[in-house]
Amino acid sequence: MNILLDSIEKVVGSQNVLRGEDVRSRTADWMTKEPCLAGAIVRPANTEQLSEVMALCYEANQAVVTHGGLTGLVRGGMASSDELVISLERMTQIESIDCVSGTMTVQAGAPLQSVQEAADQAEMQFNLDLGARGSCTIGGNIATNAGGIRVIRYGMMRDLVLGVEAVLADGTVVNSMNTMLKNNAGYDLKQLFIGSEGTLGIVTRAVLKLHPQLTATNTALVACEDFNSLTGLLQHARKSLGGELCAFEVMWSSYYSLLTTESNRHTPPISSDAPYYVLIESLGAEQKESHERFEKAIESAFEKGLLIDAVLASSDHQREKLWAIREDVEGLAHLLAPRFAFDISLPILEMDKYVRKLQSAVSQRWKNAKVIVFGHLGDGNLHVSVATGDASDETREAVESLVYEPLKLMGGSVSAEHGIGLKKRKYLNLSRTPAEIALMQTLKIALDPRGLLNRNKVLPDILA
Amino acid sequence: MNILLDSIEKVVGSQNVLRGEDVRSRTADWMTKEPCLAGAIVRPANTEQLSEVMALCYEANQAVVTHGGLTGLVRGGMASSDELVISLERMTQIESIDCVSGTMTVQAGAPLQSVQEAADQAEMQFNLDLGARGSCTIGGNIATNAGGIRVIRYGMMRDLVLGVEAVLADGTVVNSMNTMLKNNAGYDLKQLFIGSEGTLGIVTRAVLKLHPQLTATNTALVACEDFNSLTGLLQHARKSLGGELCAFEVMWSSYYSLLTTESNRHTPPISSDAPYYVLIESLGAEQKESHERFEKAIESAFEKGLLIDAVLASSDHQREKLWAIREDVEGLAHLLAPRFAFDISLPILEMDKYVRKLQSAVSQRWKNAKVIVFGHLGDGNLHVSVATGDASDETREAVESLVYEPLKLMGGSVSAEHGIGLKKRKYLNLSRTPAEIALMQTLKIALDPRGLLNRNKVLPDILA
Repeated sequence: MNILLDSIEKVVGSQNVLRGEDVRSRTADWMTKEPCLAGAIVRPANTEQLSEVMALCYEANQAVVTHGGLTGLVRGGMASSDELVISLERMTQIESIDCVSGTMTVQAGAPLQSVQEAADQAEMQFNLDLGARGSCTIGGNIATNAGGIRVIRYGMMRDLVLGVEAVLADGTVVNSMNTMLKNNAGYDLKQLFIGSEGTLGIVTRAVLKLHPQLTATNTALVACEDFNSLTGLLQHARKSLGGELCAFEVMWSSYYSLLTTESNRHTPPISSDAPYYVLIESLGAEQKESHERFEKAIESAFEKGLLIDAVLASSDHQREKLWAIREDVEGLAHLLAPRFAFDISLPILEMDKYVRKLQSAVSQRWKNAKVIVFGHLGDGNLHVSVATGDASDETREAVESLVYEPLKLMGGSVSAEHGIGLKKRKYLNLSRTPAEIALMQTLKIALDPRGLLNRNKVLPDILA
Repeated sequence: MNILLDSIEKVVGSQNVLRGEDVRSRTADWMTKEPCLAGAIVRPANTEQLSEVMALCYEANQAVVTHGGLTGLVRGGMASSDELVISLERMTQIESIDCVSGTMTVQAGAPLQSVQEAADQAEMQFNLDLGARGSCTIGGNIATNAGGIRVIRYGMMRDLVLGVEAVLADGTVVNSMNTMLKNNAGYDLKQLFIGSEGTLGIVTRAVLKLHPQLTATNTALVACEDFNSLTGLLQHARKSLGGELCAFEVMWSSYYSLLTTESNRHTPPISSDAPYYVLIESLGAEQKESHERFEKAIESAFEKGLLIDAVLASSDHQREKLWAIREDVEGLAHLLAPRFAFDISLPILEMDKYVRKLQSAVSQRWKNAKVIVFGHLGDGNLHVSVATGDASDETREAVESLVYEPLKLMGGSVSAEHGIGLKKRKYLNLSRTPAEIALMQTLKIALDPRGLLNRNKVLPDILA
C-alpha cells in the first residue's frame, strides 16, 4: 500500500493522505465511536483529484471505503487495515443556486445543514431534513437515499436530486448533472448512485431540487382510540389539508407513556391513556389561511370520531415541546438501555397486527421485555425498539429474527431509510427475491468488476 | 423463426401468435399509422407466459420489440420482419387498490385511462395525465417515463411508481413490487426499467402511487409583458398557491395568436398582443377556500406587475375553453403543415434567449418560416414547432441541427418527455457525455448481453 500512497500523495498533497495515529484518532461510526482502522485516509480536493486517485487504486487493485458524515447507523463506514478511506471533507462547496428553476449545485461533502441554510438565504427551501443534519453530508444522503421527517410531502432524497456526478471504480468521471425536471434522453444514470451506498461509484457533485420557502407551520398532537381511526385520520389529513400535510408521526402509547408520565422527561400535553398519538404538521404559504385550514381539519376529524383528544401548538415554543417528545431518541435510548433498534417498513394496513404479534412474541420469550414503537406512519416506516435487559449477540439475533422475519410474508422491508451497510446484509434476502439480488450482483459486477468500492457492504458475497 | 413460433404457440395458444396479414393490418406507430412489419405478434396472458416466451427467444437468439399503446412518437414500436412483437394487450388487469397506503397494483397492459378511472372510483387520484390517456398503457408510461400536464405538482411517471415486475431478456422474472414509500433494502431496481424504453427488460406489472382525490380546480389565462415577469409569476404562483399549483403552461405569442386571431379556431379570451400567455391551474381540497386563494394570488401578481391581463374560468365550460387553446395540437399541426415538432428541455432562465436565437436562425435560412413555441415552463420543457413550408429530409436535418445543437452548451435535453426511440438516437450525444453513453452501454450489455430487447433503440451501436 505504501507505494500506492506515495503516488496518491503526488495527486492530493502529502497533508491529505492521513496515516497511523491520524487515522486511528478518527472514528468510523458516529454511533459507536469505534476508531477508524483503515490503512490511510485520502482527502481529494475535487473530482479531478478523486478520479486520479481511483485510477491509481484500480491499477493497484486497492479497495476503498467512502466516508461522509458517518451517521448512517448500518456500519457503512467501517474499513479494515487493507482498505483506504476516501473522505470528501474538503469538497463542501455550494457552487450555485438558481431560484427560477429551483436548483442548487453542490459538492458531495457539503453538510446537509449548510445546504439547507444556503437555500434559506436564497428564500428557497431544501426539503430533506433529519436529526443528523449538522453532520451528515449530501453525498451520504444521496448514497443512502436518506429519508427523514418530510418524506410524506417531499419524498426521499431520490426525489430531491436532479443530477449527479460520480467517479467509478476505475476513475472514470460520469457527469450526469441534469438540472431539469424533465429529461428523458437515455437512461437516468443518477438512479444507479442513489441508494446504492457507495458500492457502484463515489458521488462527487449533485444538482438538488429546491422548493419555494414556506413558513406557515401548524402543529397538533392528537390521540386516537384505535388503529382504524389512525388510518382514517391519515386519509382525512391528506385530503383536507390539500397539499400542505408535511408530517404524520405516530407514537404507540408505549412510546408516549414512557417518554412522558413514566419517566417524567416531558409533561404530557394530553393524557397518556390512549393507544395512539399522532404529531400532525402542515406547512403552507400564509399563516392565517393555513391556520384556519388546519384548525378546521382537526375539528372535522374530531366530529368524525377520528380522534379523541388534541392540542394545537399556539407558539413556536409549544411546537418545539411537542416535537421534543417525538424526537427524544436520546431519552429512549437512555430509558431502555440496552436496547436493539430497528428501522423497518411495511404496508400501513398490516402495521397494527405486526406490532401486536411482535409484542406478544417478545414477551413470551422475555418476561419483562419492552417493545416501543413510533414512526413515520404515512411513509409505511416504523422505528421499533426492543429491550430485553440483555445485549448479548445471541439475544440480538433472536430479536432480529422476531422483528425481521414476519416482514417477508407481507412484503415489508428490513430497511426503510438507513440502508443495509454491513449490519443488515444477512437479512437482505428477507426483503428481496433471489432474482433481485442476482440482478443487483449483475450491476455490481458491471460497474465495479474488481469489487473495490465499499467491499462486503449491502450485497451478499458474489459467487464466482 | 417458424420453429420458434411453434414452440411459442404451445405457451400462449395459437390464437395469440399473429402472423401475416394479422400483423400487417396493425400499425407500429400511432402517429404515422405505418403497418407493423414484424415477423409475428405474440400476446402472452400473464408474466409466466411471457417469461417462457422470452426464455425461448433467448435460446433462439430472437430479437423482440415490446408494444404498448404506440403513442410514444419516437418510433419506439418499429419492428422489422426478423423481429417478434410482444404485445401486452391481454395483460390489462387492475389487481388491487389500497386506499390507506395509497397504492394500486396493475398489469402493464392496462390503459392509463382505465387506471385513472379505477382510482377515481376508489375516491383516490392517479396523477399521470396526458393527451394519449385512452391509448397509452401503464407499461409504456413506465418504459418511457411519461410526463404530461401535472409534472409540476406530482412529478414524472418515475415519481408515481413504487414497484415494478419485469421480465429480462433471458426470461428471468424480476419481481420488485415494493408497495412502501420508503424501502432502502438494496438497490432500487425498478429505476432500471423506468425510462429505459424496454431495452433492459419488459415491464409486466407495477405498483402505482395514488394521491387523495382533489376536486377544487381553479384556472386562469394570463398575459405577461416580458420573460422576467413570466419567471417571476412562476415563483409567485409556486409560493402563493402553497402546494396547490398543478399547471403552469406557457404559450409564446406566436402560438396564442396563431390559434386564436390568425386562424379563428378559438375566440381569444384576452387580447392577443402580449408576448407571453400562461394557463395557470390549481388543485385543492375545498372549492371556496381554494378559489379565494387562487383569486388572491392572481390579484397580487397583478399588483406586483407580474401580469398585464387575466381571465379566470368561472365554470367548467370556460375552463375547457381555455385548455382547448393550449391543447389544440391538431389545430397546430393543421395550420403549420408540414412542420417539424420537438420536445426539448433546458434551464428556464435560458429559454427566452434560446427561442429568440432559434427564431432568428430559422428566419435567416427560410424567409417565411414559422417557429411556434409552447410548453410546460415550470418543468423546463418546451414544445417547439418549425414550419419552413418543406418536409424534405434535408430540411428536417437542417432544422434538427438548429433546434438541438444549442442545447448542448446549456445542458439542455433533446428529449424532455418522449424518450429517444429510433428517432433521436443520433442526437443522444448532444445531451449526454461519452462517459454517460458508455455507462448506458455497460448496463445494456449486463442486462441484455445478446441485444434482443428493442434492438437499435435509444443507444448508439455498441462497438465490440
